[in-house]
Amino acid sequence: MENRGNWNLTMLCDFYELTMANGYFKKGYQDRVTYFDVFFRKVPDGGGFAIAAGLEQFVEYIKALRFTETDIDYLRGRGIFGEDFLDYLRHFRFTGDIWAVPEGTPIFPNEPIITVRAPAIQAQLVETYALLCVNHQSLIATKANRVVRAAQGRAIMEFGARRAQGADAAVVGARAAYIGGVTGTATTLSDQFFGVPALGTMAHSWVQMFNSQYEAFRAYCELYPTNAVLLVDTYNTLKSGVPDAIRAFNDVLKPMGITKCGIRLDSGDITYLSKEARKMLDAAGWTDCTITVSNSLDEYLIRDLLLQGAQINAFGVGERLITARSEPVFGGVYKLVAVEDEDGTVTPRIKISENVAKITTPHFKKFYRFFGNDTGKAIADYLCVHDETVDDTRPLVIFDPDATWKKKEVYDFTAREMQVPIFLGGRCVYDLPSLEEIRRYCEEQVETLWDEVKRFDYPHNYYVDLSKKLWDIKYRLLEKTY
Amino acid sequence: MENRGNWNLTMLCDFYELTMANGYFKKGYQDRVTYFDVFFRKVPDGGGFAIAAGLEQFVEYIKALRFTETDIDYLRGRGIFGEDFLDYLRHFRFTGDIWAVPEGTPIFPNEPIITVRAPAIQAQLVETYALLCVNHQSLIATKANRVVRAAQGRAIMEFGARRAQGADAAVVGARAAYIGGVTGTATTLSDQFFGVPALGTMAHSWVQMFNSQYEAFRAYCELYPTNAVLLVDTYNTLKSGVPDAIRAFNDVLKPMGITKCGIRLDSGDITYLSKEARKMLDAAGWTDCTITVSNSLDEYLIRDLLLQGAQINAFGVGERLITARSEPVFGGVYKLVAVEDEDGTVTPRIKISENVAKITTPHFKKFYRFFGNDTGKAIADYLCVHDETVDDTRPLVIFDPDATWKKKEVYDFTAREMQVPIFLGGRCVYDLPSLEEIRRYCEEQVETLWDEVKRFDYPHNYYVDLSKKLWDIKYRLLEKTY
Repeated sequence: MENRGNWNLTMLCDFYELTMANGYFKKGYQDRVTYFDVFFRKVPDGGGFAIAAGLEQFVEYIKALRFTETDIDYLRGRGIFGEDFLDYLRHFRFTGDIWAVPEGTPIFPNEPIITVRAPAIQAQLVETYALLCVNHQSLIATKANRVVRAAQGRAIMEFGARRAQGADAAVVGARAAYIGGVTGTATTLSDQFFGVPALGTMAHSWVQMFNSQYEAFRAYCELYPTNAVLLVDTYNTLKSGVPDAIRAFNDVLKPMGITKCGIRLDSGDITYLSKEARKMLDAAGWTDCTITVSNSLDEYLIRDLLLQGAQINAFGVGERLITARSEPVFGGVYKLVAVEDEDGTVTPRIKISENVAKITTPHFKKFYRFFGNDTGKAIADYLCVHDETVDDTRPLVIFDPDATWKKKEVYDFTAREMQVPIFLGGRCVYDLPSLEEIRRYCEEQVETLWDEVKRFDYPHNYYVDLSKKLWDIKYRLLEKTY
Repeated sequence: MENRGNWNLTMLCDFYELTMANGYFKKGYQDRVTYFDVFFRKVPDGGGFAIAAGLEQFVEYIKALRFTETDIDYLRGRGIFGEDFLDYLRHFRFTGDIWAVPEGTPIFPNEPIITVRAPAIQAQLVETYALLCVNHQSLIATKANRVVRAAQGRAIMEFGARRAQGADAAVVGARAAYIGGVTGTATTLSDQFFGVPALGTMAHSWVQMFNSQYEAFRAYCELYPTNAVLLVDTYNTLKSGVPDAIRAFNDVLKPMGITKCGIRLDSGDITYLSKEARKMLDAAGWTDCTITVSNSLDEYLIRDLLLQGAQINAFGVGERLITARSEPVFGGVYKLVAVEDEDGTVTPRIKISENVAKITTPHFKKFYRFFGNDTGKAIADYLCVHDETVDDTRPLVIFDPDATWKKKEVYDFTAREMQVPIFLGGRCVYDLPSLEEIRRYCEEQVETLWDEVKRFDYPHNYYVDLSKKLWDIKYRLLEKTY
């Protein structure tokens, strides 16, 4: 059983989804059409926006959704499910509709990133994996995008597999990081499987394996003359590391006419060491030699290093990116927002709570992003009921849903519907874009945000407003229920 | 390619392991026997000890280690590996030795948790996955153990799959949490695959699906009368949630003579709500009704809730456990500590660094834990060279490796060797214990630690000392190399 190849991800559900499914089945609710939204409440790290990611893995999961006989035997063994329900599971497939924002889209709190419309049991069962995909990959893509922006055009290499929270976190995490803008990864399997460019040169053990550091460097230059990036901190960076590297470059690369090479610093004070190393390399004529640094980096440290004038061409970022160490949770939730009667009437449902922030926005919705025609920049997002349409040829007054007196007229704008159909009637209708396309789209879309929204700390609060119709439905339900 | 069943974990390596492997091959070092240690430098969350976990997954990986033709084709496509090396990989198997501390063992910084002795390429290639397994699962087992200890005997349910960093983080993470002492998980696949007991009852959507909360509760009690745990915060916990639950218990369970049932609180002020709910339940005669709480819990909040007299029987702990949110990285490293000549002479190797904390303890080692014969408690750990033996029938003077004047005589103690053989000559010689055995062993071993070491904040610094022989080797190498 140990081989994860045996895992059926259909079983990666919370057990309560099965107890509820059994309940819906017993109560005759299994064909009742329900609407669930995936949304999140807060951008990690106090940022101004997040990056949506994880849809592709959710799509593959939905396509493969089924219970095997092994699964059914396991469930029977739990002693609480009837044979009629188990037989129902035997023929279980996803037959519903799914809409979602494409991967790489900047997203904001309280927007439906994914909407699932399906019979109750189906919609309920996919909860855990939908959230797992979106939460994990949006977390990493969002963090990666911050790190990439901090580096101001310098390359970021994702180095974190060894500290990742499991194999998926490493392999799929590198995919999400690539969407967020990193240049490549150290993880070979992410390259083989997803096409995230994998790169790597040497560890300290390479240097230790030889009788001297110089021999180790020389051997590496001879083997990989066009990609000689030497790790110079095994013993003493400035006393022996950089001098031995220069000697190896002189002895091996120079006679070959190669000027491009590199060193990597992995410990010590990076600002000081990079400046000193730069001087030594330049003095020796190795002005094209790049300096890559690693060692517990994140967006804050990178920003500070560059502010201090550190001489750095590229960054290797490990544990703090692949685990999103500063805030390792993306809090996406999956909430029932409506149920459909047999005659097709859609009735909104709300979840209230003592915590005001946990109150949901009910109903089957869609949402728009408004772009200014003059600047191309995103102005506001606008959630409305599924049957509403925004006419962007005319000005529109929008208002803050929490402070309704705060109004704003938008004009000369283009409204874009943000969700696209993914499944209709159980059939996948979405052409999954390539990873390169997603990454490029992400970069373009982040460009549509004002710098004020992109600030790391205390960014401008981007508007996510409700239509008047939706707001009225929400507050009527609140007053009725509380 | 999307199905993770196609993943060959052999390819879950850092790319530099392959460039180095190719280099060792070209330099004729592929048969050179090397020694690598897995160790960590700092207990997460400032704790006094960690729990070792992840060995089983590393063992399965080693057993399955091989390159497929697909992998070799991919590597050929990278354009930097010669056919002779690719052919070498085609026949690649692990032929070395591995020693490790069993899963569930309390571990301390700088101890070799795993030691790998193998030809250079083999030993180098397993680096990433060894670290990934140990770092991920030790992180979660350590965190879980803290949470479990905070709950003072009350059950902890692991609820975190939806916020986990990928599928492994959810499924394997629940395994690690179980080793650390949680009672069960919400993740069905962790039960099916690893035997971690999976439990669950209802989400808010169950309550929303019915026309009224009472109907939802009543239906659930009818379906699962012996496991009716009702989620009472969908609308208003005290105004309608608890009253509707009591009504459902009265109407359905009471006539059946059932007194055991439960409610779950998932929002609001848990201390206040649990006390009020307890009063209401007791006043209605439901004194056996348990109160389970969830909502962003961790060891600190659990400690505070109990200090404030919250009326809680069990805790559901989600994102803060499954991601180890307060410190989501376990910093295990994999370092070359020795190389072996053809005549069998083992030569220690050291890695120095500007960061003193990054200096390694060289050589092929083993380590002991000393237990006081009077108390059964662990006194100190003692690292020595592989050919040393501790005679625990006589007193022994040990000293702090960083402050050598601090000496301590240990007497009337039992010395236990902590690593056990896992692979010898490529053959697995270790009977993997069952998950229940590991969990029980962990509980017993944590009991051998003094309370001072178990304190959450500023715990007593447990002694991890070096033998005189090992200390001398380390400092001779330091002086020679720096």
